[in-house]
Parts: sequence; C-alpha cells; structure tokens
Amino acid sequence: MSNRTHRLEPHVYYYTFGPNEPALIINSGDTVVANTLDAGGFNEKMEPIPEEQKQRSEATTFREANPQVGPVYVTEALPGDTLAVTIQKIKLNRNYAWSRHRAHFGCLTGEVPGKKLFLNEPVPESKFDWQLNLERNTGILELKESQRERIEIPLHPFLGCIGVAPRFGRVETSMTPGEYGGNMDCIETKAGTTVYLPVWVHGAYLAFGDVHAAQGDGELCGVALETTAEVTVKIEVLKGKTCEWPRLEDDRHIMTAGSGRPLMDCVRIAQVELVKWLVDEYGFEKWEAFQVVSQAGTMRIGNVVDPNYTVVAKFPKKYLVT
Amino acid sequence: MSNRTHRLEPHVYYYTFGPNEPALIINSGDTVVANTLDAGGFNEKMEPIPEEQKQRSEATTFREANPQVGPVYVTEALPGDTLAVTIQKIKLNRNYAWSRHRAHFGCLTGEVPGKKLFLNEPVPESKFDWQLNLERNTGILELKESQRERIEIPLHPFLGCIGVAPRFGRVETSMTPGEYGGNMDCIETKAGTTVYLPVWVHGAYLAFGDVHAAQGDGELCGVALETTAEVTVKIEVLKGKTCEWPRLEDDRHIMTAGSGRPLMDCVRIAQVELVKWLVDEYGFEKWEAFQVVSQAGTMRIGNVVDPNYTVVAKFPKKYLVT
Amino acid sequence: MSNRTHRLEPHVYYYTFGPNEPALIINSGDTVVANTLDAGGFNEKMEPIPEEQKQRSEATTFREANPQVGPVYVTEALPGDTLAVTIQKIKLNRNYAWSRHRAHFGCLTGEVPGKKLFLNEPVPESKFDWQLNLERNTGILELKESQRERIEIPLHPFLGCIGVAPRFGRVETSMTPGEYGGNMDCIETKAGTTVYLPVWVHGAYLAFGDVHAAQGDGELCGVALETTAEVTVKIEVLKGKTCEWPRLEDDRHIMTAGSGRPLMDCVRIAQVELVKWLVDEYGFEKWEAFQVVSQAGTMRIGNVVDPNYTVVAKFPKKYLVT
Amino acid sequence: MSNRTHRLEPHVYYYTFGPNEPALIINSGDTVVANTLDAGGFNEKMEPIPEEQKQRSEATTFREANPQVGPVYVTEALPGDTLAVTIQKIKLNRNYAWSRHRAHFGCLTGEVPGKKLFLNEPVPESKFDWQLNLERNTGILELKESQRERIEIPLHPFLGCIGVAPRFGRVETSMTPGEYGGNMDCIETKAGTTVYLPVWVHGAYLAFGDVHAAQGDGELCGVALETTAEVTVKIEVLKGKTCEWPRLEDDRHIMTAGSGRPLMDCVRIAQVELVKWLVDEYGFEKWEAFQVVSQAGTMRIGNVVDPNYTVVAKFPKKYLVT
Repeated sequence: MSNRTHRLEPHVYYYTFGPNEPALIINSGDTVVANTLDAGGFNEKMEPIPEEQKQRSEATTFREANPQVGPVYVTEALPGDTLAVTIQKIKLNRNYAWSRHRAHFGCLTGEVPGKKLFLNEPVPESKFDWQLNLERNTGILELKESQRERIEIPLHPFLGCIGVAPRFGRVETSMTPGEYGGNMDCIETKAGTTVYLPVWVHGAYLAFGDVHAAQGDGELCGVALETTAEVTVKIEVLKGKTCEWPRLEDDRHIMTAGSGRPLMDCVRIAQVELVKWLVDEYGFEKWEAFQVVSQAGTMRIGNVVDPNYTVVAKFPKKYLVT
Repeated sequence: MSNRTHRLEPHVYYYTFGPNEPALIINSGDTVVANTLDAGGFNEKMEPIPEEQKQRSEATTFREANPQVGPVYVTEALPGDTLAVTIQKIKLNRNYAWSRHRAHFGCLTGEVPGKKLFLNEPVPESKFDWQLNLERNTGILELKESQRERIEIPLHPFLGCIGVAPRFGRVETSMTPGEYGGNMDCIETKAGTTVYLPVWVHGAYLAFGDVHAAQGDGELCGVALETTAEVTVKIEVLKGKTCEWPRLEDDRHIMTAGSGRPLMDCVRIAQVELVKWLVDEYGFEKWEAFQVVSQAGTMRIGNVVDPNYTVVAKFPKKYLVT
Repeated sequence: MSNRTHRLEPHVYYYTFGPNEPALIINSGDTVVANTLDAGGFNEKMEPIPEEQKQRSEATTFREANPQVGPVYVTEALPGDTLAVTIQKIKLNRNYAWSRHRAHFGCLTGEVPGKKLFLNEPVPESKFDWQLNLERNTGILELKESQRERIEIPLHPFLGCIGVAPRFGRVETSMTPGEYGGNMDCIETKAGTTVYLPVWVHGAYLAFGDVHAAQGDGELCGVALETTAEVTVKIEVLKGKTCEWPRLEDDRHIMTAGSGRPLMDCVRIAQVELVKWLVDEYGFEKWEAFQVVSQAGTMRIGNVVDPNYTVVAKFPKKYLVT
Repeated sequence: MSNRTHRLEPHVYYYTFGPNEPALIINSGDTVVANTLDAGGFNEKMEPIPEEQKQRSEATTFREANPQVGPVYVTEALPGDTLAVTIQKIKLNRNYAWSRHRAHFGCLTGEVPGKKLFLNEPVPESKFDWQLNLERNTGILELKESQRERIEIPLHPFLGCIGVAPRFGRVETSMTPGEYGGNMDCIETKAGTTVYLPVWVHGAYLAFGDVHAAQGDGELCGVALETTAEVTVKIEVLKGKTCEWPRLEDDRHIMTAGSGRPLMDCVRIAQVELVKWLVDEYGFEKWEAFQVVSQAGTMRIGNVVDPNYTVVAKFPKKYLVT
C-alpha cells in the first residue's frame, strides 16, 4: 500500500459532487492535506474566491454555498469498493466564523431553499459574528439585544461536507446530502472519525469542505459557525467491500448516516443500515440485531435544514468485542 | 413548605391520565415513594394485576399497556402553576425485563397502533428476555439466532411515563405523550432530573409508571427493557410560574420535550419552547436565543413509535451562568 | 325494522364524541331530523348557545368549536356491528356563513392548534362574512382589499362532523377526526351519502353538526363557510358487519376515510381500507385489488388543518357491477 | 409568430432533463409531433430501444425508466420567460399497456427507490397486462386470482413526464418531478391542457414522454398503464412572464403543481403558488385570495411514489370572469 502525503493546492473550487476534473490523483493509503474555504467561499484571510476559480453548474448566489476542495481521484477505487477516509486533523486557521438567519432557510421558519411554503412572514435576516479563540478552543458571540453580554462555547470542528461521485452523474449542488455523503452537516465527521463511502465511479472522486467550528444538533437556523481549516485525511480503498450509505466509525461507535425527507425516513434509512452492518460484519441475526439496536443504540439529528435531512444512528463498539 | 414522605400503596392502577380518584393527597414539598408495575402490568414478583384493580376506559389488550400509579393530588397546585417533580430515585427491584417485537408496532415495520398502513407483511412477533444483574447494573440478553452468544449492556433506569391531568378532560390511554407529559419514553426522566409539568386542573393529578431498565434512542421496536422499580419523587408547586409543555432540568442541561407527529413537529415544538425558556428566564432576546440554540443546543429522539413521537431539546447550563 | 321519524330537539350540545347522555333513543331503521348549530355555537338566528347548554370537558374558547347534536342511541347497535347513516337532507336555514383566518390555525401558517411551531410571525387574524343566497344556492363574499368586487360560488352543504362513540372512552374534543368519524371536514358527507361507522359501544351514540355551506379541498385556512341547517338522517344497524374506519357510499363511489398525521398516513390508511373492502365484499384478491385501485381509484384531501388530517379514497361503483 | 409543424423523429432518447443536444430547433408558435415510448423504453411495436440510442447518466436498470423525446430548443425562450406548451393531442397507438408491482416501489410497501426503509418483507413482484381497446377507449385487465373475471376502465391518456432544463445543470433522472416539471405523473397533463413552465436556460429544452393510458390518483403501486402514443404539442414563449413552478390551465381550471417531500410540502407549495397567481394576474389581495382558495379551490394528489411527490391545486376559472 502506498503511503505518501500530498498537499492539495486547489486551482478551482467545486460546488458539485461528481466525476469533475481531479485536483489530485493518489493511491490507496495516501494522505491528503488541504486548506478548505468557508461556506461562503472565503479563505483564512477572508478573501473571496476569484470568480474564475468557481466551478458551478449555472450558479446563482444560493448555489454558491459550500465550495469543495478536490476531487481526489483514488486509482484503486472501483465500483463496488468502499472508500475509507480517516479524518486525521481539522486545524482551524482563522479566528473568525460567521452565521446567519436567512428568511427562506432554517427549520423554525417553515421555508426550504427556493420553496416558499407559507403565506405568513419569514424570519428576519441577520448575521452573527463569532470570534474564535483558538487557544482556548472556544467561540464567542457578543450579544447585542439580550440582557446578557456574551456567550462562549467550546469548539468542535468538523467537515460539513464530505462526499464522493454519486451513483449516477453529478450532484449539481453541494448543499444537499445523500447516499454519496455530501452536505450531511453532522458533527461526527470530525478528527478521529473514519468515514466509509460507497464507490460508484472509478476513482471515487472524493471532495470535502464547509468546515464548521461548532454547531448544535440539527443546525436549526441553517448556518453553523462557518470557517476555514487545514484538513488532513488518510484515504484507503477497501477492495470488494460494499456499502450503500455512508458509514462512520470512531473509537466508541459504529455509525450510519441516513439522508432524505421526511425526517422519519432518515431515521429508518440509518437504522436499517445499522442493523444490516451488525448482520453483515458482527455475526448478528437480523431480528436480534434489531432488538439490541432498539435497546442500546443511539441517534443524533445532523441537520433538519438542507434539501435532505440527515440522521446518524450509532451503536457502541464496546458491546461488539468478542 | 411541607416536607413529609408518603408511601403510595396503590389499590388500583390507571391506564389514563386525568382527574381520576386520587390515590394520595399531599402538600407542595412532600415526597412520594411508590412501587411501579411494568408496562404489561406485572409486579416485582411477575404477578399480574388482579382484574378488579385495573382502571381503564373500556379496555382491550392494547389499551392495557402502561398501568400508572397515582394520581397524586397536590393541594396547592392551581391552573397556571407549574408542578416540579424531582425524580430522586428509581430503584430496580426485579432481576428481569422483557421486550417484544410486535407485528403492528415499531418504527421499522411501517405500522402504528391499530392502523395497518401497508399491504406487505409486518414484522414477525417475538419476545426477548433480558436478565438484569442489579449488582453490575447491566442487562443481559442471550442470543439464540446469532453467531454471538450474548450481549450485556449498562442499565440506566427511567420512567417511561410521567404526566398530569391534561388541559381538557382525560387522556384515555397511557400509551401516548403530549403537553401533559405521559408516555414520552425519554431516557431523561431518570434519577436526578426535575420534570416541570403544566398545571391545568386543581391538584395537578400526577401519575407515573412504565419503568424502563434501559432503552435506545427512539425505542425503535416499540418496547424497551420493561421492568419494575421503587420510585421516589419530590413534588413542589411553583406558584404563578407557567409552562406549556414539559420542561426538564438536570445538573447539566435545561431541556424541553415536544410530542406530536410528524417527527419534525416534535423538533419544532421542543426548540420553540427552548428558545422561549431562554427568553423568559435567562435574559435572551428571541433571535439571539435562536442563534445560540442553533450553535450549542443538542437534541435527542425519545420515541418514534408511540401515537405521538417525542423529541427532547437541550441547552447546556454551563453557558447560562452569569 | 322500525321506520319512525324523530325530531331531535337538543337541550344541550356536546363538544365531545362518546357515550354521553343520549338525546334520543331510536331503533334501527328510524329517521332523525335535527337543527344543527354552526361551528361557533350560533343557531339559525345567530343566537349563541346559552352557557348552561354547553357540554364540554373543561372547556376553553378553543374547545368550544363544533357543538354536536345528539348523541342518538340506537338500541340494536352492538360492538362489532356497523352503523349505516344515510344523509337524506341538509337544508340550509340561514342566509349567512362566516369564515376566519386565525393566527394559530390553518395549513399555510405553519401552526397547529395549541402548538406554536415557528418563530416567525403567524398569519393576521381576520373574519369573512359570506352571504348565502339560498335560492340561487350560492355564497357571496364582498372583497374589500382586492381589485375585484366580489366572488360568488355554488353551495354544496355537508356535515363537517359526524361520528360515534370511539373504541375507548370519549373523544374530548369535536375538533378532531379519527376511526370513529368526527371532524373529518370532508365534502363527501353530504345529502345522498351513506356513512358507515364502526360500532364499539352498545347504542353507537351517533352525533353530528358543524355544517359547512361550502369548502375547498383541505379546508386550507382552517375554517369553511360555517352555518346552520336542518339535517335529516336515516339510521340503520348492519348486524355482524364490521368496519374499522369510516366507509362512505354514494351513487357513484365506495369510499374510505383515513385520518391521522402525517398526511401520507391518511393516504395509506384510506387506501389499505379500500383494498380491504374490495377483497371482503367484492371478490377481489388482495394484489389484484391493489392494482385496480392504483389504476382506477381517486382520492380527495378532506382537511389538512385539524389535529388529524383526513383523506378520502374512492373507487367507482360502475366497475363493480357483476 | 411562427406557425410551423415539425415531426420529431428521435435518434436518441434521454433519461435526464437538461440542456442536452437538441433534437429539434423551433420558433415560438410552432407545433411538434412525436411518437413517445413507454416507461420501459418499448415502442408501439413493443420493440426495445437499441442500446446506442439510450442517453443516460451512467445508467442502471432503475435509471432507465421514462425515456424522453426531445429536447426541443425554442429559439425565443430566454431565462425569465415562460414556456406555454399546449397539449393538443395524445393519440394512443398500441393496444397494450403494462403495469407492475415492485418490491421496492409504491406507497403501500413503505419503500422508496433505492432506499429500503423497513425490516419486514416488501410487496411481491408481479406484472399486469392491460389490453387497450382503442375503439371503446377502455383498458381491460383479466383477473386471475379474484372471483371476478375482468375489469374494464375508461382510458384518459396523459403525459407522465413533461419538463424543461432545470434552474441548475441537469436533472440526472427522468424519474423525479420538480420546479422544472418532469415526472409529475398528473392526469392533468392531458390533451386540452396548457402547461406553463419556467424558462431558466436559453432554448428552454422541452422534453416529454412516459404516456399513461390511465392512472388512479397517487399512482399508488408506482406504475400506471404504461404505453405509447403520438403526441402533438404547440409551443409558445410568453416573453417576460415568469413563473417559479409549473402552472397548468384547461377550459375549467387554473392549476399549480407542487412537488417535494413530505406530501404536506407539495400541498403548501401548490397552494402558495396558486394564491400568488390569483394575486399577480387576477387582481386579488393576498389574504382574500387565500380565503377564496380555501373555500372554492380543489386539489388532486398526482403521485405519492416518485422521489418527489406531486400535488395539483386548482381554482375554477368560472369564478374569475370579470
């Protein structure tokens, strides 16, 4: 197995997942280091992407969200394999993150992207500036309208987006999650987690970006602490090992991510995949797997704001030791 | 404030929440100790409830689930007050818990109680016997169909049901959760948690039961580790303090429980109530509260199987210290 | 079979469905004539119900919606039978109907009764006065804010509510529909339709009210053309014939009404019941029934605003002639 | 305005909507006549598409559904315009249609394409052969398992799919509907209806296909009476007239089609668009429009089986005469 480290210096940024022109061609076992931009396309110095570096479908403001670095073409990755991406490091490199309330976005306004669902007034637009104290590893928001002065919360940086080329064609926006990963907005895609993604296209075409310095469950208002980071991932191809939806693993849990609408379908997809995993690799019979997942499994709601929602189902590894 | 301890020895068990004949009349500040039965109506010796002690609407097998002890009438509790119930102890008193897979119940079969939703075959019925090791505080399931022999998981006993008389009349089944609490099936109603419930009827009429020795998020198959316990709760009336949905508090979080269908409405109810709580009692302006909840709040799915689902939204108390 | 006609002169009005004190005891085959009040409790002269005639749980303004006449106790009706109620006439007797937009009600504001789901502003409250021209059989609304002067639409009076005592206890509000019928808000419960309702309690306890002079599909804003009428229904007991959800029949269709949340569950309940009906009484095998319903069945959305939504599934009788 | 009639003889068939290589370049006002294939890619002689004529993303069996003829490039169509497509004729040209029950498809099995949602058994696979009597205009299914011999239903042919290039890039499957139209599976896209589609890309790129000889509301089992036809459409560009979702119009109704998940969002999208239409073009103030739509509007469920569901909201034109 190869074991080289590549520095990915993007010349362009993609707003899609798919078999785009590779930024890098590597071998299974290699490591990739890249600086990601924030969801709005600003770098660590708050400089915007030059227009000519944006690779969009036929973009509008909305579709410009979440520029990705990559794709990384992994030579050994063939359809039917699984790509194991271990997130080794997410090193924040800016002392600032922003968030927003947008009129037509977020789960408490009753609007979804491009779809006005109600006749009443949407939420007022506003912007929130979070200072990141990288030494204390906290984010600080000065409160202007409240009787409190500020709030300081711990940071837990993670990749808002990580995905491969989808089963068919190209996903025309990096706003949405699915079977290929994408904009899952799950706090679990953090340093220490291995993300297993299905390979449908030779090369796999891994791309990632949209680092969040912190985020609550569900990403309720639709926008987290949007910032930049230097990201290090180690990439391996698991030959002949197939999965149908993203699987994740850290030192404590095996996890599956289900994305869709309505929210209950995310629960169902993730749990069916988790039961399947226990059956395929851990020796459980189907209904006994269902029983133990019912009693000892946990779940976390990743996002309830993107075009598809995401739920992560988890099972503790300590119960799987033989 | 009163400070007496009452032993509640039920003569009858209720399958409803409402202004039923009180089992006990107490004062604000008093403590109540009671033995609860399991969801099937069996006591710590696995003896069933005698028929004459069952207080149902016009019961059938289905409606016999979740017999409650109580109701406890709290003299000072008047409409518009809040009842604060601190769960001091849930002492398991049986070394056995059962679970089931039922054809017409549970979130991975596509059926809801009494409502066949699909034309295809439901899940096969089966029963699971969990041995409880009360010394090790674990539950053990012998696996019969799997390549593994057993699974052993830690116990975390909690009340599957706790509720008061609803805003109107009586809730005719203890299977469902709502604004009054009820069958929320949330692991958060454990020892150490204070549950705040709205008072709509003089006396409040608190009832509880359905102890689960352990349960995964969502209670996927519809049945947890059903068992019995000796439960100790301290009850206080917060005069003139109003809430509209259950609120919970432990040493780390303030929490709100939203129950309804579809699942997204539970998310919305719980989060709107959480924002409201931050505004009412912690000095936040509404939109700043929404922002901090979006970034630092968490959520847990209580159940996705009862007639109403339940989601608990949480905010860490450490960010609320002034 | 009996064949008497009873004039029901209510002394009280119920805001619940269940085994309340009967207003009338009849035999199978009898006919009942009654004047219904509008959803707000006003009679044909716009006089309100005297307070002492209101039979609510522990009522509030909200729960006072939809006073019912009845219940009618049908001597022969035993659990397991079906009650066939043929709506013979709905004679409007007031030249006025009202509708409203309410801040916390209706499907385009994102609110459900008692449950604030969003943080943004709800719809503005307003009232609409419809003049009923009983000769032309039309309703007329003068427009005040539009560039048009008025709209005139044909009337198609129907019962917003019709139901029996539920399977268990009492339904504490006449705002909600379910297996027992209730506030289905379906235009199909009109003159010429026979409504089949499950009998769960000896006597069946039929009640009805909430006449709508007209209504669009879904009752989007939550309030139809609320008015009064003289209603004539013929009631028969079908011995030993069982149904689990309301079935309806007119000269053109057999129909089933499914009520629940989310909306897809209404679709599923209604369609599964319709397939079942074709199998039970019309000689179809299950999967062939599913195929013909897929190709020749229709559906209508009754309401998307009540605590439970309602969908009516229909199959044309002309394809069922042998 | 141009007024030519073009015969479209496809050399290839597309399984996507977007700016694909045009099959025909026309002017506003022209008419197009084309033979469509059935959903499985068979022509009027039941011959399959030669492999080299299939234009898919990276196709699999699933993605091969619904081959489209076109796209038609309309010279005058610019972003911000509306394309008005009047369906003049759908002439069935085969005496046979097929339908299927598929294990992982259809609203009563609890599965969605590629997403196993449940652990229980799916519906059994089967195929149904419908004979089309084009003289009597009926479809006949011989029943094999039922106590009835056959069912004969009237035909009402319509386009299952009709759409333009989407706002961004390309829709990689002709299985799904959206803002651009697509696989709406609505019986309203029949002869006599004008479909208004938003133009996002110069040329509009209209494509259509997937004729259904008949279908019930919702297309419950996921497959209608799949057949072929000669289709005639007249195409006009409405300069400077913008719409955001498909609008439809026949001699009796103006209509809007909302597609999404869950089903309630389709209701909301369609109704908000309908209110908007009444405000923009018929002189209604917003809230009065909402009131009259609430009282006199209707709805039909197009499909509840595709990756997005579709609901059509309707308002009678007779109330709009000034």
